[in-house]
Amino acid sequence: MAEKQKLEEQLLSPDYLESNEWKLIKKVEDYAKDRLNTVAHGFDHTERVFQNSLIIGLTEHADLLTLLTAALLHDVGRDIEIAIGADHADASAHEAKDFLKSVNFPVAKIKRVFEAIHGHRSSREGKHAFLESRILSDADKIDSLGAIGIARVFTFGGKINRDVQDTIVYFKKRLDKVMMQLHTDRAKRMAEERYNYCVSYLKRIEEETANIK
Amino acid sequence: MAEKQKLEEQLLSPDYLESNEWKLIKKVEDYAKDRLNTVAHGFDHTERVFQNSLIIGLTEHADLLTLLTAALLHDVGRDIEIAIGADHADASAHEAKDFLKSVNFPVAKIKRVFEAIHGHRSSREGKHAFLESRILSDADKIDSLGAIGIARVFTFGGKINRDVQDTIVYFKKRLDKVMMQLHTDRAKRMAEERYNYCVSYLKRIEEETANIK
Repeated sequence: MAEKQKLEEQLLSPDYLESNEWKLIKKVEDYAKDRLNTVAHGFDHTERVFQNSLIIGLTEHADLLTLLTAALLHDVGRDIEIAIGADHADASAHEAKDFLKSVNFPVAKIKRVFEAIHGHRSSREGKHAFLESRILSDADKIDSLGAIGIARVFTFGGKINRDVQDTIVYFKKRLDKVMMQLHTDRAKRMAEERYNYCVSYLKRIEEETANIK
Repeated sequence: MAEKQKLEEQLLSPDYLESNEWKLIKKVEDYAKDRLNTVAHGFDHTERVFQNSLIIGLTEHADLLTLLTAALLHDVGRDIEIAIGADHADASAHEAKDFLKSVNFPVAKIKRVFEAIHGHRSSREGKHAFLESRILSDADKIDSLGAIGIARVFTFGGKINRDVQDTIVYFKKRLDKVMMQLHTDRAKRMAEERYNYCVSYLKRIEEETANIK
């Protein structure tokens, strides 16, 4: 309980970043807001990944400027993936790097932001060489679980023309994979109850759709 | 309990239709299977509307050949709505009529099937002049509730490029409207627990997405 209380106090206080760092974060946030517009990865998703990153980052003593910047920019290239098929993690990392140079972001940290974003795609699992990269990956995955994860997986399914039944099959497989891909203990604690909710949701779908025959 | 047991026995026995009627239903089913391919209104949705129609229809002593045929064909024009923007209830009703003529369906019942399908669109509420039309509308609405309803509303949202947040707003409004549009007591009993599940799901989304700020 003491740990939880301490964390909540930290979350409510902006002292975990210097004021010049907050100014940079604000610039990054404005840029991200402007660039995020796809149906299942809009700015609301990025806001939640930011929040999850902050919670895990404070617990794990991460470099918060690197981590929160990477969280804000991790999906800015989604529209490029949709438009021309380029990998969105690649596209986002390159776009982030160019933007951060333009606002005089600390050069040594641009490299870390680039690598964290580049590595956040699920298929690149196991390539998280440093803490902030692992936390971004965890924070992103938590948002694919729970009631919001259900809303997002079906919305994305419809967007790519995948029908309800195929998304159910996909989601079932994905759930267990996500749980195995989590790195930090904090993320595992955040994920557990959301995972259980998804499992009971899928069980309920089966019951509702089983015909009396 | 006696009522429920009797209903289950009826559902498991095919005696509620004559054998020549079953042959017609089989033809209709094959046709529908072939024509249904959109992401949130595929044949699985139609199968559930068929099943819901059968349960309500047996309780309400409906004309089952009319009702089940209308259930199987109620969405066959969905792809025409997507392709050229024509109202899918119109398109489905006309397509159903032409198909039923071609398989020598009883002429007097074609008219009823046409009208039931034509009236099943939500925006035409209140125009259900006869029992089978009301039951089809109820059976269709039940499939927009519960865990399967959640899966369908987000899939459809993604398909029409509506983002997660906008679908949540849409779904909240829609839920109460659907409950008020139900006609039969049997459907109301089937809908109640599914409605409650959706309400608790939306509450959970709110909790998950509320930031500590």
